[in-house]
Amino acid sequence: MEGFISGNDGEIKGLKDLKASLGDVDDFLNNNNAPSSSHDDDSKSPETTPPSAPLPPAAATTTTTTTSSASASSSDLSYFKAPTFIPDLISPAVSFRSLCRSSTHTGPTNGKCPGFLQCNLVVLRKEDAFDFLLFCQRNSKSCPIVDVCENGSFNPTGITKSSDLRTDLPAYNVYSNGKLVQGNLSDVRSLWPTDGVAFLLGCSFTFDHVLIANRISARHIEMKRNVSMYRTNLKCREAGRFKGNVVVTMRPVKGGDVAKVVTLSCKYPEAHGAPIHIGSPEDLGITDLSKPDWGDPVEVREGEVPVFHACGVTSQEVIMSSGVSFAITHSPGCMFVSDKIID
Amino acid sequence: MEGFISGNDGEIKGLKDLKASLGDVDDFLNNNNAPSSSHDDDSKSPETTPPSAPLPPAAATTTTTTTSSASASSSDLSYFKAPTFIPDLISPAVSFRSLCRSSTHTGPTNGKCPGFLQCNLVVLRKEDAFDFLLFCQRNSKSCPIVDVCENGSFNPTGITKSSDLRTDLPAYNVYSNGKLVQGNLSDVRSLWPTDGVAFLLGCSFTFDHVLIANRISARHIEMKRNVSMYRTNLKCREAGRFKGNVVVTMRPVKGGDVAKVVTLSCKYPEAHGAPIHIGSPEDLGITDLSKPDWGDPVEVREGEVPVFHACGVTSQEVIMSSGVSFAITHSPGCMFVSDKIID
Repeated sequence: MEGFISGNDGEIKGLKDLKASLGDVDDFLNNNNAPSSSHDDDSKSPETTPPSAPLPPAAATTTTTTTSSASASSSDLSYFKAPTFIPDLISPAVSFRSLCRSSTHTGPTNGKCPGFLQCNLVVLRKEDAFDFLLFCQRNSKSCPIVDVCENGSFNPTGITKSSDLRTDLPAYNVYSNGKLVQGNLSDVRSLWPTDGVAFLLGCSFTFDHVLIANRISARHIEMKRNVSMYRTNLKCREAGRFKGNVVVTMRPVKGGDVAKVVTLSCKYPEAHGAPIHIGSPEDLGITDLSKPDWGDPVEVREGEVPVFHACGVTSQEVIMSSGVSFAITHSPGCMFVSDKIID
Repeated sequence: MEGFISGNDGEIKGLKDLKASLGDVDDFLNNNNAPSSSHDDDSKSPETTPPSAPLPPAAATTTTTTTSSASASSSDLSYFKAPTFIPDLISPAVSFRSLCRSSTHTGPTNGKCPGFLQCNLVVLRKEDAFDFLLFCQRNSKSCPIVDVCENGSFNPTGITKSSDLRTDLPAYNVYSNGKLVQGNLSDVRSLWPTDGVAFLLGCSFTFDHVLIANRISARHIEMKRNVSMYRTNLKCREAGRFKGNVVVTMRPVKGGDVAKVVTLSCKYPEAHGAPIHIGSPEDLGITDLSKPDWGDPVEVREGEVPVFHACGVTSQEVIMSSGVSFAITHSPGCMFVSDKIID
């Protein structure tokens, strides 16, 4: 069954397992394919709004920054390898974004919408856009670009049929002069710069359900926690003003499963691909696994090895290290769920 | 044996076949590993200068646009996954660039330095750099970025230990307001903009020796001609002012070898990867294979199927279609040979 035709890799991508796209990981494990819009909200945010009082749909949102490209949908796309978004197949992602838009879901997205590409968000002023795009190109293991919006647009037409990046994530951070000035906002419509350029970078949550389907534990999902993230001592390749260190996620994996995690995750280069380090956290400058720099600590059990994947929060570490004048990002772990079906 | 550690894909890359890096394809086929600096020049350009009168080495070239990054060599590189260029392994590429620098080699590079990544060159003014970088990111099948120099620099430190993009290609084109105004220049030092941004895009010549090693004919190399290139009716995804159609190369392949060409070339995504079309040139809007838009025609024999790979000359088609104010590029088929060893 054909789900999504990718823009760049020349392969027609199918849908390996339709079940995997029709619910969250609990559903997936239980073979219970209830629509994702009926999921319980596991967020603890005080900003949660009842589902009965949603915001208007993104397409009807009033804004002064709408551009022609902002309203483009896949029906307008006629370029070579333009994606095709089939409504029946993308409905779990569309429904989940609707829950985020209404602030019904305001927490981490690990385990949500398995089978869909999840993304980090970075929004910068136009003046910083070239250097950041080059930074991502040079550090694609940490910052794999999956789409970039036209200047001023908030609808990434390469990975969704229709969405609004200003409302469709569970939670946002705002940085000013390299400092986090606001965290866990549920709506950034009033802050979005008129010349803002939005970058979407793949996230390793994208392949968690593949690990689970192969009987490899995803501890952060089991424990209903955010994944553990750490700043490392590995320097990124600089680009213009952008510099900083690689951030990693950590998953505890049984020794007998480590090779399987490598061979499975390397199939998803848009979601960081293979791990960059296995075992010996001290080599990365990580002194205490129980004290992550972002996210929650998770239990590392006897016989388990810490497996480190590059993480898109590298972009936020770099925004801070580089003293960037203004940036909007997702809140770590609270990703943008796209319509792009992975296989 | 470890040759080159790639910057982005997280894999330590080895050197599959050292022989393949030590000569040109004729040597490779004949198991004669003479240093490439002794190769006969097959160029017909009147600009050819005797090897006895070379230009000074790139590092000693006098220039007013040198920046600190322009003189960076791999010994300065300390970032995560920074490449390591081992002098004994990269010497064929270094020698070949020296032949280009002295205008001893001024023709196509197909068959030269097998085992090394060959690249298209595009140099633009800073004002066009973001849109073009985004264009490449959106059309990575045609324009796979392998390195981008710092503003004003002409030394791509991600793929060479030391080089000068203004002299180290066999031949250059210059475009003004979307029109080709000068072709087959052997040196563009006097034309390089002080704010120029140089982009290197992978080329399918990179994997020709792999096809040959698998007993698949590379007709353009057999016939000592440039590859055939055609403008297609496939639209690229636009980015800012950049728009245009996909350009393809064509290789005639026996029916029994077509699948092998797919499975072999797909291993080289930085060099366009798998073909984008096989057979039926009319589907691409190509009416006469014997009249390529760039390069030379090659014989298509009974029982052979035309196999089309995306081509980096897409970037030159796009420069023309978009009316870009100023650009320097390689002359089609006359590529930049990098120090990056593929495996």
